[in-house]
Amino acid sequence: MEETFVPFRGIKNDLKGRILCYKQDWTSGFKAGIRILAPTTYIFFASAIPVISFGEQLERNTDGTLTAVQTLASTALCGIVHAILGGQPLLILGVAEPTVLMYTFLYDFAKDRKDLGQRLFLAWAGWVCVWTALLLFLLAILGACSIINRFTRLAGELFGLLIAMLFMQQAIRGLVEEFGVPHQREGINQIAHESSWLFGNGMFALVLSFGLLFTALRSRKARSWRYGTGCLRGFIADYGVPLMVLMWTAVSYIPANNVPRGIPRRLFSPNPWSPGAYTNWTVIKDMLNVPLIYIIGAFIPATMIAVLYYFDHSVASQLAQQKEFNLRRPSSYHYDLLLLGLLTILCGLIGIPPSNGVIPQSPMHTKSLATLKHQLLRNKLVSSARKSIQKNLNLSQLYRNMQEAYDQMQTPLSHQMPPSLELKESTIQLASSHGYIDAPVDEVVFDVDKDVDDLLPVEVKEQRLSNLLQAMLVVACVAAMPLLKKIPTSVLWGYFAFMAIESLPGNQFWERILYLFTAPSRRYKVLEEQHAANIEIVPFKTVVKFTLFQTAYLLLCFGLTWIPIAGVLFPLLIMLLIPIRQYFLPKFFKGAHLQDLDAAAYEDMPAIPFNFLFEDSNIEATNFNTNGGEILDGIITRSRGEIRITQSPKTLSSTPTPSSDIIPANGNTSKHTQPSSN
Amino acid sequence: MEETFVPFRGIKNDLKGRILCYKQDWTSGFKAGIRILAPTTYIFFASAIPVISFGEQLERNTDGTLTAVQTLASTALCGIVHAILGGQPLLILGVAEPTVLMYTFLYDFAKDRKDLGQRLFLAWAGWVCVWTALLLFLLAILGACSIINRFTRLAGELFGLLIAMLFMQQAIRGLVEEFGVPHQREGINQIAHESSWLFGNGMFALVLSFGLLFTALRSRKARSWRYGTGCLRGFIADYGVPLMVLMWTAVSYIPANNVPRGIPRRLFSPNPWSPGAYTNWTVIKDMLNVPLIYIIGAFIPATMIAVLYYFDHSVASQLAQQKEFNLRRPSSYHYDLLLLGLLTILCGLIGIPPSNGVIPQSPMHTKSLATLKHQLLRNKLVSSARKSIQKNLNLSQLYRNMQEAYDQMQTPLSHQMPPSLELKESTIQLASSHGYIDAPVDEVVFDVDKDVDDLLPVEVKEQRLSNLLQAMLVVACVAAMPLLKKIPTSVLWGYFAFMAIESLPGNQFWERILYLFTAPSRRYKVLEEQHAANIEIVPFKTVVKFTLFQTAYLLLCFGLTWIPIAGVLFPLLIMLLIPIRQYFLPKFFKGAHLQDLDAAAYEDMPAIPFNFLFEDSNIEATNFNTNGGEILDGIITRSRGEIRITQSPKTLSSTPTPSSDIIPANGNTSKHTQPSSN
Repeated sequence: MEETFVPFRGIKNDLKGRILCYKQDWTSGFKAGIRILAPTTYIFFASAIPVISFGEQLERNTDGTLTAVQTLASTALCGIVHAILGGQPLLILGVAEPTVLMYTFLYDFAKDRKDLGQRLFLAWAGWVCVWTALLLFLLAILGACSIINRFTRLAGELFGLLIAMLFMQQAIRGLVEEFGVPHQREGINQIAHESSWLFGNGMFALVLSFGLLFTALRSRKARSWRYGTGCLRGFIADYGVPLMVLMWTAVSYIPANNVPRGIPRRLFSPNPWSPGAYTNWTVIKDMLNVPLIYIIGAFIPATMIAVLYYFDHSVASQLAQQKEFNLRRPSSYHYDLLLLGLLTILCGLIGIPPSNGVIPQSPMHTKSLATLKHQLLRNKLVSSARKSIQKNLNLSQLYRNMQEAYDQMQTPLSHQMPPSLELKESTIQLASSHGYIDAPVDEVVFDVDKDVDDLLPVEVKEQRLSNLLQAMLVVACVAAMPLLKKIPTSVLWGYFAFMAIESLPGNQFWERILYLFTAPSRRYKVLEEQHAANIEIVPFKTVVKFTLFQTAYLLLCFGLTWIPIAGVLFPLLIMLLIPIRQYFLPKFFKGAHLQDLDAAAYEDMPAIPFNFLFEDSNIEATNFNTNGGEILDGIITRSRGEIRITQSPKTLSSTPTPSSDIIPANGNTSKHTQPSSN
Repeated sequence: MEETFVPFRGIKNDLKGRILCYKQDWTSGFKAGIRILAPTTYIFFASAIPVISFGEQLERNTDGTLTAVQTLASTALCGIVHAILGGQPLLILGVAEPTVLMYTFLYDFAKDRKDLGQRLFLAWAGWVCVWTALLLFLLAILGACSIINRFTRLAGELFGLLIAMLFMQQAIRGLVEEFGVPHQREGINQIAHESSWLFGNGMFALVLSFGLLFTALRSRKARSWRYGTGCLRGFIADYGVPLMVLMWTAVSYIPANNVPRGIPRRLFSPNPWSPGAYTNWTVIKDMLNVPLIYIIGAFIPATMIAVLYYFDHSVASQLAQQKEFNLRRPSSYHYDLLLLGLLTILCGLIGIPPSNGVIPQSPMHTKSLATLKHQLLRNKLVSSARKSIQKNLNLSQLYRNMQEAYDQMQTPLSHQMPPSLELKESTIQLASSHGYIDAPVDEVVFDVDKDVDDLLPVEVKEQRLSNLLQAMLVVACVAAMPLLKKIPTSVLWGYFAFMAIESLPGNQFWERILYLFTAPSRRYKVLEEQHAANIEIVPFKTVVKFTLFQTAYLLLCFGLTWIPIAGVLFPLLIMLLIPIRQYFLPKFFKGAHLQDLDAAAYEDMPAIPFNFLFEDSNIEATNFNTNGGEILDGIITRSRGEIRITQSPKTLSSTPTPSSDIIPANGNTSKHTQPSSN
């Protein structure tokens, strides 16, 4: 992304880039067929469940003015608009915790003013949204998102980990509350508030939430299970989380005959067709009734929200587009911020809290699409390899055929070679030691099921369909409120914990923290598994210093979130990391080490330009036969999958290739390897 | 073991064999130093906790005539006597479930007879014990245990799995009962019986028992954890289970202020110094008051108990001495049965239920001693290897030094070479490919921490000390009853489940069941990990057939245990497997396949005679530095560790050995490898 502050240029560049691939964004989504449902449902749950929980929180805080119906409606509306008109379709929109906190603050302020009160609260909030939107327009037009370039892994991962901590905190707090008297609501059995039932409810909540957490985490690893058919394993890995929510909801009904109503506690939200659920939609009529002083005063909270949204939206988008995902299509920070402004006005006018880009859902979305792409590529390559083996081809011919199959599934690059597959050194060694270089390959030399996984780089199925579908499921969710209300709140807390844990792998900051706690004699294992430059090359002491600094900063940010109201502005503290990283850290760390620990775009690295034309693939997308593929879950979270662009286009000529031409992987040539000291 | 039915010969042979190593049984135990406490505490918990639970059960069934005090006293008494005077010190004695069932039956019979009644119940049970003991003497003298030779893996593992199922059944039943009204006892708060508190109690029980199960299983794997120092990891692996019982007992006190007394339910037993707890000790005085008809009639239940004890005792002993443990000291079936008879009389005369050899505790004991021996050997070999590397020796010199260090720790065999260490083929390959054969070895070629584990065969620290100490801890247990009573019953159910699961690995029957459920594409993984002849060589169809037969038989036995009273005699059904294996199965399975699936001593295999002399080792036994060693938990449960006796004593001559002389492992030469078909 070009760093420019010329007005409108950022938006123009974004639009130019995304329009070129707009059609492909749809076609490629539809080509994936039924399989697109796996990332869709996965993200739908990750998106809807917190939104419902935040809605419940908002309902308590605003005396029922805003409920889960409104938060879901906002998520659905913004999601659909963003999926269709947005720039970066990997970004997931939703009503987030900071929005809830800000709206709570607005409500507390409004209800005590006699010329506003509960009646004009939404109208006033509407004005806040208008001001927010204007500020967002300004930021988008002036190219404020260019700064995102300076936003390095250091800050992004710290933010990601902070969000994980906040989710985990919410899970723990929710569980503790299960032991206490619930917030007063009509229709709840008073018996359930007796201390004996409170105890039982709390213990049941522990069972349900740990049950969900444990089984959901297990189900995500189903691909590497040893039992069951590949088809079943794939299904469980893809849909395990929704299935587990279902299962534990079912379990929560087992003691139904022996416990009073209200145990376990379940999600609470009015049905969208209940009387009064729609009063907010006509809020625009009231907006002119707000006294002028409050209309102007609304600018103050609006600045806070604008800063918040600018930050959250851009960072969510950036985390969904991290370098290790090897995305091909361009980012769209400025245009997306502009669109967010429009959505904010829209939400304000119909009296629902606005949505913005969310973490960890957005990076989770990209990861699940990487899994999808891997499966599609894998199926194609396995069938190509099988055919080659049947035809008694030798290893380099087999390799060439696979490369061809791989290229067919790529967006052809106009002035660059498509990335080449990396054949494992061990395979070549095995082949040469058995004299198999020119002999027909068999399954001993090239074990199709096992070796194809190692060949594939990380790629992401970039498209708009999954985002649109998940947003439409949120619409369905509003309609299916009576069903949703059957989910116990404790399952929800388990789910919060699950999301926090799911967001950790692949976060280098987190992995470095773990690395510090690893016994020295076991460190080789981490290195063996991760091939992580940030700990392999950099001296251990430097890693310690850097990680400790980052951890201290994380705890500072976490502490800030505990301060009422001001706590919402913790992103400012994280933005402060930009100058810290740029001007302060280089004084304490060697440039080369910093580059390894926290590559900054402004210090190095030419960007790989996006190249369009056409993408094509005729995959049997409905093929569920995910034999193997367990390595996958690991692969997509690791940086070693970064694509190496081969500079010599003649490597794979059509004449029979001698074995020396087959380039082994693991030659991490781009890395500097001077023995660095601290 | 010689198969002889000449009177007294079995006992004589046993005594002859064990007396020769009696002194070493003690010295070698003391030489292990402080480390002996790891297997001791591990087995103490495995032994005491079920005994307490069975005591509670017995108390309910006998209206308080017998309690946990008596079952613990019996376990302690018999344990101490057996540890000192017994033949096979690996065998663990304890009051077992069948004894409890039989005593319940005796009590139900006696209390309804007006000339016996509750008053003379123990006296009559004393007569039953006398008869039982006489029958056991007879069996021991006539060499009945010779049949144990015919008792193959098929029956032994089926029995082991059945016991695991019974333990698991007990765990589940116990947990379900936590939701119900508890058995009436004085002093329990009636509030705790309200349905609301019953629900809370049940849910709390779920939390505690699953918490214990999960953490205990995790702690056993601590050696392979990535975090923490090696010392801490070793400590957790060794003492994790007691620690977890402690921890979850502490957790059970967290809600103490908010719940009535009696929640969660805790172990119940009178203190041994309570009034009335000692009425049973003088039961011998009443024995002559039992009417003659009942004295004679006592013979009938006595036959059942004798068969039961004969079977349980011998099988527990056999499972503790399975071939893959590579034991060096002889078995002692006949003499142990004779001693059991004596102990049974003793217990009968003082009015406590007798103990017998228990499963799964006895094989668990052997396994934990194999872990201990491995650690001791490992420390010795690692230090030898480190010294060799410091001295710049080459690989074969290093290897020779390690062999010497290893030999020092062995009981020298008079007419056989000590087993030789198996150097990994990959290490030799690595060495030769780097031209390291004659060059000094470095940590690249021979990674001390990693490679030593692969060299070591499975061996067991055979001694009497751990058995004696655990029995003495049971004595302490009787004294510490007020502390024990703080353990929640739900932790106990979790512990039962833990024991059931702990007994599974290494059971080939269980592993074959899992293998059947393994997806065909994943089977290579099982083979890679286990090198198990029973599934590698035998055709899959045969494995299926054999395993299905075994499973059906297991379910039959399990069904039988549900029949009241007669259910106690399920061992008869298992003994029936001896003729089935010998005469029936060979008609359906090829001999070679049967031999692989279920090696029978009468079909093949010369026994390795025991050779004494002296054992020596000067290990720094207090050295807790268990760097590494995680492979261990796996090794000791696998059969691949069986020791290969090298026939050429010149392999390791003192002249520099060319690389070809270093014998690689994995050459499983003793196995027949004809391509077998079904």
